[in-house]
Amino acid sequence: MRKMGSAHFSLAEALSIISGRSQLVWYYCMMMLCLIPYSLGAGRGHFYKWEVENLYWSPDGVENVVMGINGRFPGPTIRARAGDIIHVQLTNKLHTEGVVIHWHGIRQKGTPWADGTASISQCPINPGETFNYRFTVDRAGTYFYHGHYGMQRSAGLYGSLIVDVAEGEKEPFHYDGEFDLLLSDWWHESVHRQEVGLSSKNFRWIGEAQSLLINGRGQYQCSLAAELSANHCNLTGSEQWAPYILPVLPNKTYRLRIASTTSLASLNLAIGNHKMLVVEADGNYLQPFETSDLDIYSGETYSVLINTDQDPSQNYWISAGVRGRKPNTTQALTLLNYQPTSASKTPQSPPPITPEWNDYNHSKTFTNKILALDDPRVPRPPKNYTRRILLLNTQNKINGVYTRWAINNISLALPPTPYIGAIKFNLKKAFDQAKPPENFPQDYDVMKPAVNPNTTTGSGVYMFDYNSVVDVILQNANALNPNVSEIHPWHLHGHDFWVLGYGEGKFTPDQEKNFNLKNPPYRNTAVIFPYGWTALRFVADNPGVWAFHCHIEPHLHMGMGVVFAEGVDRIAKIPRQGLTCGLTAKRLMKGKNLG
Amino acid sequence: MRKMGSAHFSLAEALSIISGRSQLVWYYCMMMLCLIPYSLGAGRGHFYKWEVENLYWSPDGVENVVMGINGRFPGPTIRARAGDIIHVQLTNKLHTEGVVIHWHGIRQKGTPWADGTASISQCPINPGETFNYRFTVDRAGTYFYHGHYGMQRSAGLYGSLIVDVAEGEKEPFHYDGEFDLLLSDWWHESVHRQEVGLSSKNFRWIGEAQSLLINGRGQYQCSLAAELSANHCNLTGSEQWAPYILPVLPNKTYRLRIASTTSLASLNLAIGNHKMLVVEADGNYLQPFETSDLDIYSGETYSVLINTDQDPSQNYWISAGVRGRKPNTTQALTLLNYQPTSASKTPQSPPPITPEWNDYNHSKTFTNKILALDDPRVPRPPKNYTRRILLLNTQNKINGVYTRWAINNISLALPPTPYIGAIKFNLKKAFDQAKPPENFPQDYDVMKPAVNPNTTTGSGVYMFDYNSVVDVILQNANALNPNVSEIHPWHLHGHDFWVLGYGEGKFTPDQEKNFNLKNPPYRNTAVIFPYGWTALRFVADNPGVWAFHCHIEPHLHMGMGVVFAEGVDRIAKIPRQGLTCGLTAKRLMKGKNLG
Repeated sequence: MRKMGSAHFSLAEALSIISGRSQLVWYYCMMMLCLIPYSLGAGRGHFYKWEVENLYWSPDGVENVVMGINGRFPGPTIRARAGDIIHVQLTNKLHTEGVVIHWHGIRQKGTPWADGTASISQCPINPGETFNYRFTVDRAGTYFYHGHYGMQRSAGLYGSLIVDVAEGEKEPFHYDGEFDLLLSDWWHESVHRQEVGLSSKNFRWIGEAQSLLINGRGQYQCSLAAELSANHCNLTGSEQWAPYILPVLPNKTYRLRIASTTSLASLNLAIGNHKMLVVEADGNYLQPFETSDLDIYSGETYSVLINTDQDPSQNYWISAGVRGRKPNTTQALTLLNYQPTSASKTPQSPPPITPEWNDYNHSKTFTNKILALDDPRVPRPPKNYTRRILLLNTQNKINGVYTRWAINNISLALPPTPYIGAIKFNLKKAFDQAKPPENFPQDYDVMKPAVNPNTTTGSGVYMFDYNSVVDVILQNANALNPNVSEIHPWHLHGHDFWVLGYGEGKFTPDQEKNFNLKNPPYRNTAVIFPYGWTALRFVADNPGVWAFHCHIEPHLHMGMGVVFAEGVDRIAKIPRQGLTCGLTAKRLMKGKNLG
Repeated sequence: MRKMGSAHFSLAEALSIISGRSQLVWYYCMMMLCLIPYSLGAGRGHFYKWEVENLYWSPDGVENVVMGINGRFPGPTIRARAGDIIHVQLTNKLHTEGVVIHWHGIRQKGTPWADGTASISQCPINPGETFNYRFTVDRAGTYFYHGHYGMQRSAGLYGSLIVDVAEGEKEPFHYDGEFDLLLSDWWHESVHRQEVGLSSKNFRWIGEAQSLLINGRGQYQCSLAAELSANHCNLTGSEQWAPYILPVLPNKTYRLRIASTTSLASLNLAIGNHKMLVVEADGNYLQPFETSDLDIYSGETYSVLINTDQDPSQNYWISAGVRGRKPNTTQALTLLNYQPTSASKTPQSPPPITPEWNDYNHSKTFTNKILALDDPRVPRPPKNYTRRILLLNTQNKINGVYTRWAINNISLALPPTPYIGAIKFNLKKAFDQAKPPENFPQDYDVMKPAVNPNTTTGSGVYMFDYNSVVDVILQNANALNPNVSEIHPWHLHGHDFWVLGYGEGKFTPDQEKNFNLKNPPYRNTAVIFPYGWTALRFVADNPGVWAFHCHIEPHLHMGMGVVFAEGVDRIAKIPRQGLTCGLTAKRLMKGKNLG
């Protein structure tokens, strides 16, 4: 077995020009192997007409109902260049459910109303109605989109959003072809039932996923790898759940754009016999580093480069398995298929083994390698902060019966009136006017269950001065049961933040001296490890109201999030279409003669 | 076995005063046997605070999710007196679904916006929002309420609404006590999945119900009657699916108020050893007639009187079984429990046998007995009509792939803007402006499948002159497959109609001479039998927009309905809260500064 040396990925080479890439991509499309269609925009505007509806679909071989777009699951891939304008005319074809779509990683500068977050940036789009999302994708990178209302992301409402560098611009690395891998987890129980369990007095956890999906395709209770299961999947390749296979030519460099929209699972991805050079995270370039396996948390995206320098008469497994929770879900598999080897040829080497789920040192080692590329396109953090808030993450009870997550002892309950309109029009009854706490009792023992686990719900907003520099210390803690502390990937809307550092136990101000102000990664999602803390810094320079929340869907549903706002008075225009609910509707319709 | 003679129900006796009734009812409540709580209004106003949410519930012994109110399924019983005002403050606690509640049988004179019909009388109430239904119950009778958005009625959103005669008024019959029996059918598959099947290109029918429920209680795959099943239900009586037992005292007269909110099933109800005297239908008094079993279609209500004149040391089965469709659902059972006999004593006589499902002569014989009581409280029809429309009911295809029902070859597709606002504000883009057809080709052969089964969707409105007299001839036909014609119970909102007659085959104007103008029943729901027609007459005297539709939930979902409107310019006031969607929201927010 030939090992791919790191020398193959010298920075010099990585910085070489894009060449032959488009031809290759089109070659695959012609071969009908390019399973996710995309269109490179001819101009700067991309218009999409989408209909969201529930569909019968078999994401993992078990027929179920998924939330799809234009009759497909996952939704269509959006592909554009940096600076392009995306216009999605979204029609809700559901029968009784509202819908919104969030463009994950797109900062929505100047268009905060297009962030697609129910209760925050807009009212849900009612069945039969159409909403126009129009926004600029201002930076090349790997993104995705997904539902952001109830648990509709878990229901399957997601797809890829890929932004290439602007015409004439160059990536700081070279590749010959590329593939998108959108990772997700899948439950056989409907999200409606999941929601009832999570919201009930007798709390019921959703359990572990039945399947992991790669580009919406998984295999339940069977395996592509004969050695892993007596029950080998019987597939012709045309099934909805047939794996998305990656056809590659030998001795080329490929970019894999990997995004995780999982509801719950933290994942680890590896490719048999191939190392990966990690070059991008959440739309920002990284100092390239080599890895044999990649940890990816819900809400994160990565680009990795691989060299197809292995025996071309063989195929190689690509696998993704669960990390951070005791897994009860079989690893997802697909193939790196060297052309012209048949895709039906089983790899000689077994699929890569996922690191032990609770090997947090492995996770931390990986995470610590993630640093910003020394490139003017990746901003550096301000040296000082204007305001620092500490956010304690705890698992709690309400009235002793409902199970929730809370931040500084407040569990987020999203109101029916969107904050963007409520703040703009100063509608004080639309949400809690009290400032949410910026800290937690200094004697709180993060290593033990809370002495009093009871909490309350709230809907207050952290208001930041426009252009202020905000530090957020995310503090993890013990959950309700002793010796349990979970991973939470926190995602910020409307901004990227610098991840200044991670630490164990309770954060103390003296740990600030270890903050990385030189080359911290600039991202939109960062994890807190069990019993640990994570320090973030961002500039509140984007007028709007922005969710900041754990990207685990049931955790957000259970209140694990906060709301940030800045410069709302500077928002030029909010389409009234997004405000036709709650108190904003009442305000905007005030005085109208209805008789 | 002692038979109850019809002499027991002489009109003279029936007209005797209400006596001892309230005491008896309260006696049962004290005994904790009054399983559906109710409150007799102290004054003329009744205020209810309701929250609609999804709940884990076991309606038939199989745990499922139901749409409940205030943590209960079915929803609370509303009890008031004629002339009282009902105020329901309804909060939607669902996560992503809108909701409305229709007050079935209440004509909403002066409050057409409170009819609770999504797309017609109001916008759906969004999650987290509250809508105030406020209306007068102007007439004593047996009614119910239910969801009227998507298939939320099938999801379990329903309850009883009972209106007693006004203080000092008397019913035209006597009874000592009463019980409400709200009948429904129940599927284990969620309505979300049912909707996908009904709306898919590869149409999937919902099949027959898993269980029939009496007051929300049924028994799946087990029977209360040992002789009917090897699998006897193992019940303690405290289960959610334990039968609602009717405790009665010997030698009394009881009023059973029976309402059917089934999604699909036509039912037949019978009581072992007891005959029933039918005295009320849909809130109107009937010429009393005796029957040993009662046909009841979805959307209908009846009151029957029974005499507890049988052997008081025994209990007696009450059973309900499916009619009109080849049943695959076990009959529902409960007990008429003579006090002080233990409810655990199994009746000596077996449960009544439901008439053969396709014995339509039995159904027609029953239906023809339903005539209005000669009483000034029951209006008589005008002798002449102003306008007559014929509505042909057909099963169709759209583009050859979708299966729908259509009326005069248009399948109703409800728009997102409520008609009541669209018509009031003359918003021409809100719905099809072309007048829907008032007739169908005279050469259409109702006995055979359509030559061309293709149809189109539409949203036009039948506009009637205010106070005009409208005749509607509902014409049944063959469905898509040969030799199939189904029963359809048509329900009219906002009015009662006189059922002037039923006939076989295609209606011809000469059949008008057989119309019953003397004592036709005055109702809000009437059935069309397979291959037959039904003639209705009503006065368009209620300003508003009103649904008229097949009350079978999947049939309505598949387009089997029309929209009527009259005197919309006379509607004094529509709460803007009900118009915050679609083009009415746009219109009402026009010109408002959103910057």
